[in-house]
Amino acid sequence: MTTLASTENTALSAALAAAINNKTKPLGSLGMLEKLARQIGLIQQTTQPQIIAPALIVFAADHGIVAENVSAYPQSVTWQMVENFLAGGAAINVFARQNHCALHIVDAGVNHDFGARDGLLDRKVAYGTRNFAQEAAMSTEQCAQALQAGRELVAGIKGNVLGFGEMGIGNTTSAAAIMHAMTKLPAAECVGAGTGLAHEGILHKQKVVQDAVAHHAAVVAQNAPLDILATFGGFEIAMIVGAMLAAAERRMVLLIDGFIITSALMVAARMEPAILDYCVFAHCSDEHGHRQMINHLGGRPVLHMGLRLGEGTGSVLALPMLHAAVNFLREMATFESADVSQQNA
Amino acid sequence: MTTLASTENTALSAALAAAINNKTKPLGSLGMLEKLARQIGLIQQTTQPQIIAPALIVFAADHGIVAENVSAYPQSVTWQMVENFLAGGAAINVFARQNHCALHIVDAGVNHDFGARDGLLDRKVAYGTRNFAQEAAMSTEQCAQALQAGRELVAGIKGNVLGFGEMGIGNTTSAAAIMHAMTKLPAAECVGAGTGLAHEGILHKQKVVQDAVAHHAAVVAQNAPLDILATFGGFEIAMIVGAMLAAAERRMVLLIDGFIITSALMVAARMEPAILDYCVFAHCSDEHGHRQMINHLGGRPVLHMGLRLGEGTGSVLALPMLHAAVNFLREMATFESADVSQQNA
Repeated sequence: MTTLASTENTALSAALAAAINNKTKPLGSLGMLEKLARQIGLIQQTTQPQIIAPALIVFAADHGIVAENVSAYPQSVTWQMVENFLAGGAAINVFARQNHCALHIVDAGVNHDFGARDGLLDRKVAYGTRNFAQEAAMSTEQCAQALQAGRELVAGIKGNVLGFGEMGIGNTTSAAAIMHAMTKLPAAECVGAGTGLAHEGILHKQKVVQDAVAHHAAVVAQNAPLDILATFGGFEIAMIVGAMLAAAERRMVLLIDGFIITSALMVAARMEPAILDYCVFAHCSDEHGHRQMINHLGGRPVLHMGLRLGEGTGSVLALPMLHAAVNFLREMATFESADVSQQNA
Repeated sequence: MTTLASTENTALSAALAAAINNKTKPLGSLGMLEKLARQIGLIQQTTQPQIIAPALIVFAADHGIVAENVSAYPQSVTWQMVENFLAGGAAINVFARQNHCALHIVDAGVNHDFGARDGLLDRKVAYGTRNFAQEAAMSTEQCAQALQAGRELVAGIKGNVLGFGEMGIGNTTSAAAIMHAMTKLPAAECVGAGTGLAHEGILHKQKVVQDAVAHHAAVVAQNAPLDILATFGGFEIAMIVGAMLAAAERRMVLLIDGFIITSALMVAARMEPAILDYCVFAHCSDEHGHRQMINHLGGRPVLHMGLRLGEGTGSVLALPMLHAAVNFLREMATFESADVSQQNA
C-alpha cells in the first residue's frame, strides 16, 4: 500500500549542490542550513525553494492510561491548557506569534465539553481513550476516524510548511508504549519524566508501559502499525498520523519535534517510509527516549535547546532556520556575481 | 584593574526564577530559553527584559601570517568580501536582514584602499598585521589604537544586544595562536581547517602556530592578555576586544559565535572576568578547537548548527532564541492567570 513518492532526484540534487557551493562562503560552511536548503529544494522540486505561510496544528486529547497514575499533573490540565491556547497564553502561542506561524487548535478527544468555541476545531472522537493497560486504547473504527480527520484538516491548510503540536496529560506514556512496541527497545529506554515525574514515578511508569505492551503481546507480534496505534495511541496521535501522511502527499515540509509527535511519525513511517524525506527534525527534546527515537528514524535535529514542553514548541522555534536556509540560497551572491576569488588550487 | 561589575543579584535571581516557574508549562521545560531569560533579566536588571534594536559589527582586517601559506584562499578575498558585505550579498547580510539586525562593517586593517565608501566605517590601523611567525603582529600602540577604536564604535550603537563578526584571511591562525598561548593546550587541539584546508595544510598550520608561539615564548610566559593580543592577534581581533569591553560596561547582551570572536573573548575575559556574565554563546562552530575554547570559558552554546563560516552568522541566527526567551517571560500566562491546575503534590 506504499504510495508516497520519495523526493529523490539526481539531477535536481546536483543542481542544488552546485547552487549552494557557488555561494560566497567556504565549501560546506553553512552546515545544517545547507542540508535544509537541499532537502527543502527536493521537496519543492526547485533550486529556488521558499517558505509560504507556515502553520502548526495542536491536537489535544485525553488518555485512559492516566488511571494508572502516570502523570505529574491531573487530567483536567488537558482542557485547561486548550483554554490557554485559545486565550493565547501558552508557550506555543508566544512562539507562533513571534515566528508568524498560523496556529490551529483541535479537540481530537478531550474529556471535556467546550461547547462551540471560536478558534477551536471540534474533531472529538470520544471523551478520551480507554486504559490501554487493560484494553485497546481505541477501536479500529475510532482509529480510522481520527486518521481521516487528520487528513481532512490538512486539506484546509494553506502554505507549504506544517508543524504538529499536542496536548494530552498521559500522552508520553502512550508514545513510550508505541516506541517500546515498535522498536523492542527496553521500556527503561522508552520512558521519561513526561511533565515532571520524580524517579519513583518514572519507575512506575516504566512498569505500566512494560506490562501493557506485554498484555497486548499478540498485537505487538503482528507488527502492524495501525493496530499498534489503535492499541496504545491517543486520538491526537492518530490524528497526527493522518495529518502527516496527507501533508507529505501535498509535498509540504513536515516539522517534527517532541516525543509524542515523533511517535506518530514512527507509525506513519512504517506505513509510508518515504515520508521521512519530507520531515525536518526541528528539535531534540530532553524527554528521555526522544533522541533514541530520532536515531531510530535516522533523523538529525536542527535544534538542541533542552526543551521538553511539547505543544510543538521546538518546531516553531526552528522556523527561522528554515527561512535562513531558503534565504541564503535565494539571496546570497555567488563567487562570480560578487567577483570574489575562489579557493586556491 | 578589574572594574566590570558582575550581574549577580540574589533577589532578582529569585524573582526571575519565580516568574519563570509560574508560567503554564512543566517546571524547567523551556530548557535553554529559561537560562537565557534569567541571564538577560540579570543583565538588564529586570524581570521584564526586552530585546531592543540588535546590532552586529563585522570587523575586517588582514594578517601578515598568510605569508606562511596558512589559508585555502588568497588574501584578496578579505577586501573582496568587504565589498560583498557592502553590496549585501554575503551570508551575514542575508541573516541580518531576515532577523532585523542592524549591520555595521568596519575596516580595521584591510590590505586594500577602499576609498570613501558608503556604509564602510574606516578605522584602518594599518594595511594588515606583520607576520607573527617572525615578529609581533602589531606594536603596543597599534593594539591600543584598535582597542580604543572598538570602544568608540560601541558608543555609537543603539540597542541592547550586540553581536560581533569578522572577516580576515588568516585569522583562524591568529585565533589558534592566541588559544594555544593562553590555554597551553596542544597546537593540534587549537588548529582547524579554517576556510577549508585539507589534512596536510592543517598539519602545516599546526606547525606554524606551534613554532610561532615557541618563538614568542618570553611574551607567552608573562601571560599578559594585551601582550598576547598584540603578538598574535589581528586588528579586527583587538578591535573586537575593545568593543566587547565597552558593550559589557553598557550592560548590553554580547552575542558570541565563531572561533575568532571567541578568541577575542578569551583576551577580554582575562582582563575582565565578569564579562562572561554578559555573553550569550550563540553557536558552537564546526571549526576544530571552538568547542574546547567555549568549554575553557565555561560557556554553553544556544545553537549547534555545524556552521564554520564566521562573519558572526551564528550570532544573528541565535537572535530568534533571545526573542523567544524574553517573549515567553513577558507574554505567557501563569497558572493563576490561566486557571490551570498545578503539579500534583
